[in-house]
Amino acid sequence: MSLVSRDPVLLTPGPLTTSLQTKNAMLRDWGSWDAAFNAVTAKVRKQLLDIIHGHETHVCVPMQGSGTFSVEAAVNTLVPRNGHMLILINGAYGKRMARLVEMMGRKVSVFETAEHVPTTAADVDRLLSADKSITHVGLIHCETSTGILNPLPQIASVIARHGKSLIIDAMSSFGALEIDARSVPFDAVIAASGKCIEGPPGMGFVLARRSVLEQSAGNSLSLSLDLYDQWVYMEKTTQWRFTPPTHIVMAFHEALNQFVAEGGQRARLARYTNNYETLMAGMEELGLKPFLDPKIQAPIIVTIHAPDSPKYNFKDFYNRVRDKGFILYPGKLTQAETFRVGCIGAIGAAEMRQAVNAMRDALIEMGISESVVAA
Amino acid sequence: MSLVSRDPVLLTPGPLTTSLQTKNAMLRDWGSWDAAFNAVTAKVRKQLLDIIHGHETHVCVPMQGSGTFSVEAAVNTLVPRNGHMLILINGAYGKRMARLVEMMGRKVSVFETAEHVPTTAADVDRLLSADKSITHVGLIHCETSTGILNPLPQIASVIARHGKSLIIDAMSSFGALEIDARSVPFDAVIAASGKCIEGPPGMGFVLARRSVLEQSAGNSLSLSLDLYDQWVYMEKTTQWRFTPPTHIVMAFHEALNQFVAEGGQRARLARYTNNYETLMAGMEELGLKPFLDPKIQAPIIVTIHAPDSPKYNFKDFYNRVRDKGFILYPGKLTQAETFRVGCIGAIGAAEMRQAVNAMRDALIEMGISESVVAA
Repeated sequence: MSLVSRDPVLLTPGPLTTSLQTKNAMLRDWGSWDAAFNAVTAKVRKQLLDIIHGHETHVCVPMQGSGTFSVEAAVNTLVPRNGHMLILINGAYGKRMARLVEMMGRKVSVFETAEHVPTTAADVDRLLSADKSITHVGLIHCETSTGILNPLPQIASVIARHGKSLIIDAMSSFGALEIDARSVPFDAVIAASGKCIEGPPGMGFVLARRSVLEQSAGNSLSLSLDLYDQWVYMEKTTQWRFTPPTHIVMAFHEALNQFVAEGGQRARLARYTNNYETLMAGMEELGLKPFLDPKIQAPIIVTIHAPDSPKYNFKDFYNRVRDKGFILYPGKLTQAETFRVGCIGAIGAAEMRQAVNAMRDALIEMGISESVVAA
Repeated sequence: MSLVSRDPVLLTPGPLTTSLQTKNAMLRDWGSWDAAFNAVTAKVRKQLLDIIHGHETHVCVPMQGSGTFSVEAAVNTLVPRNGHMLILINGAYGKRMARLVEMMGRKVSVFETAEHVPTTAADVDRLLSADKSITHVGLIHCETSTGILNPLPQIASVIARHGKSLIIDAMSSFGALEIDARSVPFDAVIAASGKCIEGPPGMGFVLARRSVLEQSAGNSLSLSLDLYDQWVYMEKTTQWRFTPPTHIVMAFHEALNQFVAEGGQRARLARYTNNYETLMAGMEELGLKPFLDPKIQAPIIVTIHAPDSPKYNFKDFYNRVRDKGFILYPGKLTQAETFRVGCIGAIGAAEMRQAVNAMRDALIEMGISESVVAA
């Protein structure tokens, strides 16, 4: 890493750049049994339910570990052992959800579209009509592999009409894109601290329908990932069941306070949309093309086609851009050479423009693209 | 919480008091894909193996979540699905290990002694002779419920003579008490960041025998807690399989550097022993008696009998001591009213003496014990 005096900006889909105020909250040690700490846990749980307007119907259960741990906890706990889960896949996170269902021995079916093709409500209607044994559907709201947005409200509505249960992995959308429990029917939505709420990574959370969670005792094969047990213990004692990541909880709480102060989900979406548009304008200047049709692109993370030049390789490009102060993210596609740029974190249009300029300079250094040099 | 200007000292068995230097390491954001971050992960893994002198025989696999997540990952991955695990219990953490084995559907037997009675090598010899179907033994090195120390080297030696596999929960002993892989045979030892290495909580780690881990593909019922998959991915890519708690990893690394600088395990044990002895001398002054015989007491966390007075209640005592700057820990015994005091964390004899004085003042305020007033 070069000896720049400032830390690089993370243009990654989490961990991402957090504010100094958020990080400063980690400068204190807290006892996990202490009332002052547990009051913060309670506040975090309330703030997360606020975001989905879910206080009437849902409860918030935080969980230690990365976001995937919370996805697995939700499935392990909310899907009965004789359940049958349909996973809607258009990227790596859908595949991951299918794999964890399979590993825990529950019945799983998959419906996979290409990585640039959203699942539609019509697809789901057809699938649920064709196989009545399906009890649960798993959906990735915004698939981080590409940044594609799946049409959650339409899909949720079809699933509800069939009387089935919806579990949403909203890891990279929660807090930025609207998810309203009053109008969109779902049994669980899952996300993590280190995403659009802009906290540090280290904990996830499940917003689960109370009536469903209440019926889920004994489903989980895992003690650590037993969402029911975690919830019941927390309700009874106010404490986390096992040692919480105290510093992460405090920082996440600080990040949530800033989220509210900024204006909540709509303000966050507006900032990220501005970041995204600044990036896209810059990519056009550099002659670089997005992988997805803008109509199905969430302003969260963007997949960009690599320059069509024999002089390009990602590692070289990544290192050059990093040395200029910006951390990019590798592509996750097999069919095309791409890289990814996150639009999320405690950054604004100024940082996005700086990043575009850094990419331009890197491409010029690498001797790539006349359009770049001409720009 | 009172408006004291300094944070209270945590006399708890983790989360505990960490140094400011350790916390300061959390003031930067790191990309989880970046080589600079992954070099730190590699260094942490090496430093942990150094502590057990395990480079020839074992590998280090870090895991997101609390320590229990790592215990569950070790059992889920290292015990085959048709394995039979014997758990040696003398407290809550032994019971927890038995419960997680049972939940994942593996065969489990338990051997439980009273909370003040260590398991002996003779017990284990007899149990393994009586039931040849046992394949694995689970042992809690230092049981945090009371602070009792189980005789690891003797038990490990018996288990090895029977040709069985030993999995050690060393959550509250690792780094403070000697565990030497060159002389003590075991297949896995498990601990976490927020214990005697004095990092913040948020990750655990398993030091697993390489030859055993290599044979463990496909055992785990859990994707998140699949230690084999986590290891293989990390070896191949240098990265964590799922989002790591980047800030916690950086702080843990900083804590490990301070551990080495202090003089490693022996120096840490010497400091904790001094903390323990300072505490015990103070408790004697206050007329408060330890629950355990000092011969089986580890200098990690001490269980103290509550004062024999109708004026005592833990909550009042806890709040008074907290307001004086020290966070105590509740007892975990059913048969006796106790409280616990941790001797671990980035604190020394001065803090332990201050804590004794705070407890004295609290007891006097509560009108408890002539011996206290007389002291």
